[in-house]
Amino acid sequence: MEDMRISPAVPRGSPAKEQQAAGVGILLQIMMLVLSFVLGHVLRRHRFYYLPEASASLLIGLIVGALANISNTETSIRAWFNFHEEFFFLFLLPPIIFQSGFSLQPKPFFSNFGAIVTFAIFGTFVASVVTGILVYLAGVTYLIYKLPFVECLMFGALISATDPVTVLSIFQELGTDVNLYALVFGESVLNDAMAISLYRTMSLVRSNMSSGQNFFMVVVRFLETFVGSMSAGVGVGFTSALLFKYAGLDIDNLQNLECCLFVLFPYFSYMLAEGLGLSGIVSILFTGIVMKHYSFSNLSDKSQKFVSAFFHLISSLAETFVFIYMGFDIAMEQHSWSHIGFIFFSILFIGIARAANVFSCAYLVNLVRPAHRKIPMKHQKALWYSGLRGAMAFALALQSVHDLPEGHGQTIFTATTAIVVLTVLLIGGSTGTMLEALQVVGDDHDTLGEVSHALSGEELSFDTNNGYRAPTYEGESSSGNRFKMKLKELSKSTASFTAFDKNYLTPFFTSQNGDEDEHDELFGDSRGGGYG
Amino acid sequence: MEDMRISPAVPRGSPAKEQQAAGVGILLQIMMLVLSFVLGHVLRRHRFYYLPEASASLLIGLIVGALANISNTETSIRAWFNFHEEFFFLFLLPPIIFQSGFSLQPKPFFSNFGAIVTFAIFGTFVASVVTGILVYLAGVTYLIYKLPFVECLMFGALISATDPVTVLSIFQELGTDVNLYALVFGESVLNDAMAISLYRTMSLVRSNMSSGQNFFMVVVRFLETFVGSMSAGVGVGFTSALLFKYAGLDIDNLQNLECCLFVLFPYFSYMLAEGLGLSGIVSILFTGIVMKHYSFSNLSDKSQKFVSAFFHLISSLAETFVFIYMGFDIAMEQHSWSHIGFIFFSILFIGIARAANVFSCAYLVNLVRPAHRKIPMKHQKALWYSGLRGAMAFALALQSVHDLPEGHGQTIFTATTAIVVLTVLLIGGSTGTMLEALQVVGDDHDTLGEVSHALSGEELSFDTNNGYRAPTYEGESSSGNRFKMKLKELSKSTASFTAFDKNYLTPFFTSQNGDEDEHDELFGDSRGGGYG
Repeated sequence: MEDMRISPAVPRGSPAKEQQAAGVGILLQIMMLVLSFVLGHVLRRHRFYYLPEASASLLIGLIVGALANISNTETSIRAWFNFHEEFFFLFLLPPIIFQSGFSLQPKPFFSNFGAIVTFAIFGTFVASVVTGILVYLAGVTYLIYKLPFVECLMFGALISATDPVTVLSIFQELGTDVNLYALVFGESVLNDAMAISLYRTMSLVRSNMSSGQNFFMVVVRFLETFVGSMSAGVGVGFTSALLFKYAGLDIDNLQNLECCLFVLFPYFSYMLAEGLGLSGIVSILFTGIVMKHYSFSNLSDKSQKFVSAFFHLISSLAETFVFIYMGFDIAMEQHSWSHIGFIFFSILFIGIARAANVFSCAYLVNLVRPAHRKIPMKHQKALWYSGLRGAMAFALALQSVHDLPEGHGQTIFTATTAIVVLTVLLIGGSTGTMLEALQVVGDDHDTLGEVSHALSGEELSFDTNNGYRAPTYEGESSSGNRFKMKLKELSKSTASFTAFDKNYLTPFFTSQNGDEDEHDELFGDSRGGGYG
Repeated sequence: MEDMRISPAVPRGSPAKEQQAAGVGILLQIMMLVLSFVLGHVLRRHRFYYLPEASASLLIGLIVGALANISNTETSIRAWFNFHEEFFFLFLLPPIIFQSGFSLQPKPFFSNFGAIVTFAIFGTFVASVVTGILVYLAGVTYLIYKLPFVECLMFGALISATDPVTVLSIFQELGTDVNLYALVFGESVLNDAMAISLYRTMSLVRSNMSSGQNFFMVVVRFLETFVGSMSAGVGVGFTSALLFKYAGLDIDNLQNLECCLFVLFPYFSYMLAEGLGLSGIVSILFTGIVMKHYSFSNLSDKSQKFVSAFFHLISSLAETFVFIYMGFDIAMEQHSWSHIGFIFFSILFIGIARAANVFSCAYLVNLVRPAHRKIPMKHQKALWYSGLRGAMAFALALQSVHDLPEGHGQTIFTATTAIVVLTVLLIGGSTGTMLEALQVVGDDHDTLGEVSHALSGEELSFDTNNGYRAPTYEGESSSGNRFKMKLKELSKSTASFTAFDKNYLTPFFTSQNGDEDEHDELFGDSRGGGYG
């Protein structure tokens, strides 16, 4: 039994010594966390946008890691700083992803639902494939280190996972167009789920290469994962809604029990999906959306306040910790800098791939949208620019070190590391300036007017007092081909979903019956506790 | 770097498989947690005191563990259920101990401070030594398995750590005398710190046996640990109080930052002490007391509500999880049942040792107390009876398996396991009946009268509106020897501490200045969020 315990597999000294090392390690981490919070607060207070909180955390991690490297810290203390994908995926990521689903503003999200899904699903697929093909071609032509095609696609998938933390916190500070915010937010959240599904599918293809699965099977397998995870997440969410509706826990002295159960559900959803071999991230994301929409309103008032603050707190801690942890590990890990060309061209390729993603998807979305709701070019540019890479790419790259043969994984890992550091520090630091240059920030007249105009279009049931209204497409007469019609039908089905939600789901899963005010109030404050 | 990662050291399958196993393992744990909470709630609702929540959790763990044992679960899933002392000491224990300090009711605690310290420090020492000597003597006379004297003392120390969870939750339910409650609560909390300090000191003595340290050095080393840890804890608490007093974080939109920092302080205190080679438990306990007393009142109203609920939630989760985890591990571990006599006599010995502890300490305390405040015999009996053993003893016993030579550690571990299961199930299940038999429960006239009478004696500054009053000892004239005078001086110094607190500490560390009402309200609701 002794041989399978989850403890640092460092050479076992005395337990007291080991516990002391753990103490020092965790103490350092807490100090860095406190430092990050305080520094982030000070920087935000002085409106210094060149070093957002995430960049500051990353830098703190990098600096302390470098110092630890130089000062020859004991390995037993170091062991507490190695980035463990397992720890990341099982304990740090779930609260972050859940919070992003939980803090989602339904209005702009659902009104941009079609566009978000297009960017996140189709766009991420395009970006992954484009990156993969470019890396493969560059390898074939001896421009850079050559990797097999499947591994190129794996790299493409993992590097397509964009990180929303930094950009969104700046968006929130500067006050940008709500539609652009919803696009960036929705894309980056769903895109993680897509990237990880793609990575896993490719990894599976790679290991089953010999058994010759065809492309069709890969697609089926991917859809299975995605749809299965989504169903699991939605199912758990609905279950929790019914539980809190009928268990009668919203009396005063049961607040603790109510909160305990509420807090366990998201994690249950995550682990259920993982246990079934599905994607926990996709699952917990949808659980977050469903729980906020239905279960949350079945809680007592006190518990509502508490769980909002709780998830916000936990996810802030996890987010900040992820960047520190990543910085520290980057400074400590062995990197293979021999393939500097690989890094350089990768950066170029992801820029191209992101452009292929954003501009092609925006073109598709604009085909179907009415004239006044088309995604303007400056929003497309902002979207392209805001694709910085973060912890998800890093964790997947670290996993690829185990998945891929010696050398290949190392090269991918080093390239990803470099891309993460560069994009977080450079893009993170310049987003403010960039957004100002593109004139998509600030509360100026034009932006606000545009927003309210745009909002009046598709978003329906969440604040209308006149019942359900069909969306009006003013640009409808200008074109009539079948493809556009299909897309519009899809868009209509989104609208009819909101009606279905209002008429059937909400009354069934929550204790409110058509009480619009309560509903509005419910979602009104979700912006404050946003993702950042 | 690969060789020192903190991941289950199971034979490394594919990462996906491993993550799936982790998912299943954690999923099972969450399901058991939910089951425990729901079962505990149902049992409490039906006032069924024969199976308190902790016993229910332990049983659930035992049953699921036995099933997993029979069904031959994969080792990679099992690995998630092994009880890891490190995980217990670093992540589960800190919130539980902090909460017990944080939810402490200052009034009855400080009015019984002398008695509590006597029971916890002197009493635990007596109990440890008595148990150790009895086990040693029984070994020498070939009655039971023979252990060296130091190891007997180690066993005595670890088995003297009593667990408050179950008994206190029953006390809270049944509504007992506040003084008895304070005694049991205070003793069991401080006693953990004492037991772990004793265990570590003995462990140190054992490993340095050859270098011939004398008894004096051992005492110095113990005091060093205890006083050092206490100072560290109090220091961190005071630092946090000053930070929250002057940082100006109590404005509305900084609530999250305020809570993040507040939540990090206790853990900081724990890890600081561990990092310095001191006792984190002692440290975090005092940080809890100080933070509740000073820092807490410097928070904004919203944050006060939030952090109270937060610590209550986290500690409930940790407590319940500890019992499940322990039950599961007990069902899974290899036990050496060959020394059944050792188990039987140990149970006898700890009963004797606990009697030596309680009755001798009560005698000492009663010597100095005035006639109306003497600890009545029925309280002493209740105190003796409520000494069930829990997670702390279990974790230390598990550690002893590493610390001690083959066979010795196993014997101690098995005996401790048996004692924990028996005491939790039997004592936990019969406490309600026992308390009723002793007539120390219920809101009957006698109990309440006694309480208010007892309260009027020593407790001073926390609710008096007439300024500081010196304690009045009506029984003073009845005796006059020097020993009793000394004890009384000690008791007076406690009283003068409360005056010092009121006049200097509270104004210095908090933003309130003599606002009695706020102060009263502040501590008034701490009972509701008690330890249980």
